[in-house]
Amino acid sequence: MNQFASSPFLQSLHTLLGSALLTDPVECHPYGGDWSRQHEPAPLAVALPRSVDEVVALVKLAREFGVALVPSGGRTGLSGAAVAAHGELVVAFDRMQRILDFNPIDRTVTVEAGLVTAQLQQFAQQQGLFYPVDFASAGSSRIGGNIATNAGGIKVIRYGLTRDWVAGLKVVTGSGELLDLNQGLIKNATGYDLRHLFIGSEGTLGLIVEATLRLTLPPRPLKVAVLGVPGLSAIMEVLAAFRSRVALTAFEFFSEAALTHVVQRTGLPRPFEEATPYYCLVELECEPHEEAQLLACFEHCLESGWVSDGVISQSEAQLRNLWRLREDISETIAPFTPYKNDLAVRISAIPAFLQAVDALVQQHYPEFEVIWFGHIGDGNLHLNILKPANWEKSAFFAECAKVSELIFAEVKRAGGSISAEHGVGLLKKPYLGYSRAPAEIALMRGIKAAFDPDGILNPGKIFD
Amino acid sequence: MNQFASSPFLQSLHTLLGSALLTDPVECHPYGGDWSRQHEPAPLAVALPRSVDEVVALVKLAREFGVALVPSGGRTGLSGAAVAAHGELVVAFDRMQRILDFNPIDRTVTVEAGLVTAQLQQFAQQQGLFYPVDFASAGSSRIGGNIATNAGGIKVIRYGLTRDWVAGLKVVTGSGELLDLNQGLIKNATGYDLRHLFIGSEGTLGLIVEATLRLTLPPRPLKVAVLGVPGLSAIMEVLAAFRSRVALTAFEFFSEAALTHVVQRTGLPRPFEEATPYYCLVELECEPHEEAQLLACFEHCLESGWVSDGVISQSEAQLRNLWRLREDISETIAPFTPYKNDLAVRISAIPAFLQAVDALVQQHYPEFEVIWFGHIGDGNLHLNILKPANWEKSAFFAECAKVSELIFAEVKRAGGSISAEHGVGLLKKPYLGYSRAPAEIALMRGIKAAFDPDGILNPGKIFD
Repeated sequence: MNQFASSPFLQSLHTLLGSALLTDPVECHPYGGDWSRQHEPAPLAVALPRSVDEVVALVKLAREFGVALVPSGGRTGLSGAAVAAHGELVVAFDRMQRILDFNPIDRTVTVEAGLVTAQLQQFAQQQGLFYPVDFASAGSSRIGGNIATNAGGIKVIRYGLTRDWVAGLKVVTGSGELLDLNQGLIKNATGYDLRHLFIGSEGTLGLIVEATLRLTLPPRPLKVAVLGVPGLSAIMEVLAAFRSRVALTAFEFFSEAALTHVVQRTGLPRPFEEATPYYCLVELECEPHEEAQLLACFEHCLESGWVSDGVISQSEAQLRNLWRLREDISETIAPFTPYKNDLAVRISAIPAFLQAVDALVQQHYPEFEVIWFGHIGDGNLHLNILKPANWEKSAFFAECAKVSELIFAEVKRAGGSISAEHGVGLLKKPYLGYSRAPAEIALMRGIKAAFDPDGILNPGKIFD
Repeated sequence: MNQFASSPFLQSLHTLLGSALLTDPVECHPYGGDWSRQHEPAPLAVALPRSVDEVVALVKLAREFGVALVPSGGRTGLSGAAVAAHGELVVAFDRMQRILDFNPIDRTVTVEAGLVTAQLQQFAQQQGLFYPVDFASAGSSRIGGNIATNAGGIKVIRYGLTRDWVAGLKVVTGSGELLDLNQGLIKNATGYDLRHLFIGSEGTLGLIVEATLRLTLPPRPLKVAVLGVPGLSAIMEVLAAFRSRVALTAFEFFSEAALTHVVQRTGLPRPFEEATPYYCLVELECEPHEEAQLLACFEHCLESGWVSDGVISQSEAQLRNLWRLREDISETIAPFTPYKNDLAVRISAIPAFLQAVDALVQQHYPEFEVIWFGHIGDGNLHLNILKPANWEKSAFFAECAKVSELIFAEVKRAGGSISAEHGVGLLKKPYLGYSRAPAEIALMRGIKAAFDPDGILNPGKIFD
């Protein structure tokens, strides 16, 4: 008896993919979600294509049968963009993770969409080069997903976003057309740059199957300083002081509450004895002859009262431990079911924005613990509200959502973004209007219709 | 008697713009062309709006009357994208060139589309900052036009293209909608990045009215070296040698024929006595303590036989004169009515590509003088064919066009671009298929329809 007798689509798909099609609900379940965990996965099945040809064929089949597709990379997303909650076919790139080509003259590497970020970073290192886009989930996230969300992370202040490293893209549109975009060129003024349209489109315009990424020279020797900062406005002074004097590669901040959680959970030592309301983590290139400049900058901040204490890494091990104080925050607070907001404003707007949001939070969340951290050198703030143990998850999220509207109104006033780097997906879809005008959303719909005429690619994500 | 009685559109436009509407054909003529000069301008009239509101109003009016609009910046384009040859209304941004805002913390400047590039560069310098996109026409080109063609130029190897400096854009679509895109944010993952779609769209999707541009810190002290190179393959060796050892800000090349023209016309001294087939111009950051490294690199190239002679700038004046040997080529050869091709391939593909194109040129243009130069560090080659005095212009262009098809077939084989930085406009439109697949061009049409439903924005440019 044919197991797919009831579904001609799955029957055809099985003929195409064989064992690369999963249909057992238990087996499929983990492929249907991401790290956001607000929507219950309910995929129809999971396709694990092994080649571009298989992707093209399965998209044509899905189009023929009118089946919705949800692309899935490392499933580390935080906006629900890779969630299949309505019987979609998940197209997971777990079996497409080869490195296809490396060109030392062009300093480019061509990879399949399923390559894990950390593997790309390692490969670059083996070639004496550097892939600089980095974030806490680099060990699980995949290149296709990074591109689909234009992943940012911790080195944006120096190296920009994923967008800045994509020299070429192969994508399959909703019509099953394979596009080979920009082919690794540096300069190419031949009409609309569709490559940039796909970057950050969250799987709604096409399935990214291959990418050509630029690599660069590794940074010079790095130092990390963690500085205690008495208040929000001082953070901006510290940023300005360092930015004009040293070669910054990262400028992060986090609150004492964030540090307390990390120290308690990891057993890492505090950076220095005395607690301060906020901390800045500064990473910079620093050869031995440049250390005096770093120290002078540090002392200038101390004397100006912007910094109360600080520590500078003296070894690679200490550098890594200082980074963990910042990088381990997300994982440390995960068990508290955090409600996450990922906000951005212009750097110059941060002080007023932080104060306004802080006031809202204090007014509306008296019962909730608030954890601030973020990439403040890029204007990007992560606001995490922790669920008290005695609150139901659904009631907690509903309560947080109410205050989100107030925060997003503040974002809009500041000309900011309701999603700096996590994307819109399902979670931020109701709030897209706070960052994008109705005319822009209408144009996005028009573009979507051109790339995906039948609406089979990740429907219901970003906008309805 | 009403001078616009025969044209209700011009009547309404005159009511809107008053003296900012030009209708005298002689006065209008220069606004209807660019530097390409292959098509005779024949504009209906010229609008010189003074504000965003006026642009919105005139687009709505043009839509109502079904009148085609051609946006015009500095008219320095080389592809005919700003040519109004069919009775279009030219919308020239000559009267919108204010600097609207400067933010030293964000290091951004917001300007009207008509600001001249050199004025932006000067303004940045006055603030102790740097706008790094630079090219020979910086004294005439305007920011809106730079963005519409994603202008590149001579510093791309270090600073990227115009695209990399646009933090925000205000554009008016073909429906007369004013879009305020990205608002100067560094991180913004809220759906499709329409800003990047407008960059390089040559006025076919909307009229750029304002831009927020990033500035950066000025480079460290610069040195320029001009090196004599015996052959094409040696150029790549020189590039590799310098790129891995010094902080390059430019890497240009030109042929002996190009140098001869410049020296004859300008009276500038040759860089050194002996002529060589090719020359590399290398610009790099070089503090006094780094000069030994530069010299070592130079000597390594000499010893390897990649360089036969060379000169390194010892003063700012000498640096400027060495740059002129490269920068004055275009102007110097302009009187010879050059047929221009602006080609790009991946850097690694350059040696084989150069040889193939050189063979084609020698085979098919035995009567024509060929001038090579280009931004070889970005894979971008400018191939200029000079018209012999005894050839008619039309016969010469027709003859060149024939060989262009052969060259473009070579570009396609190499996965390159038929227009690295000049754009497609009218001149490259017949050849777009050599760089973009039919499916891509169909998608461009779909996007165009979403932004410009009535097809009034620069119709007939890029594609029909």
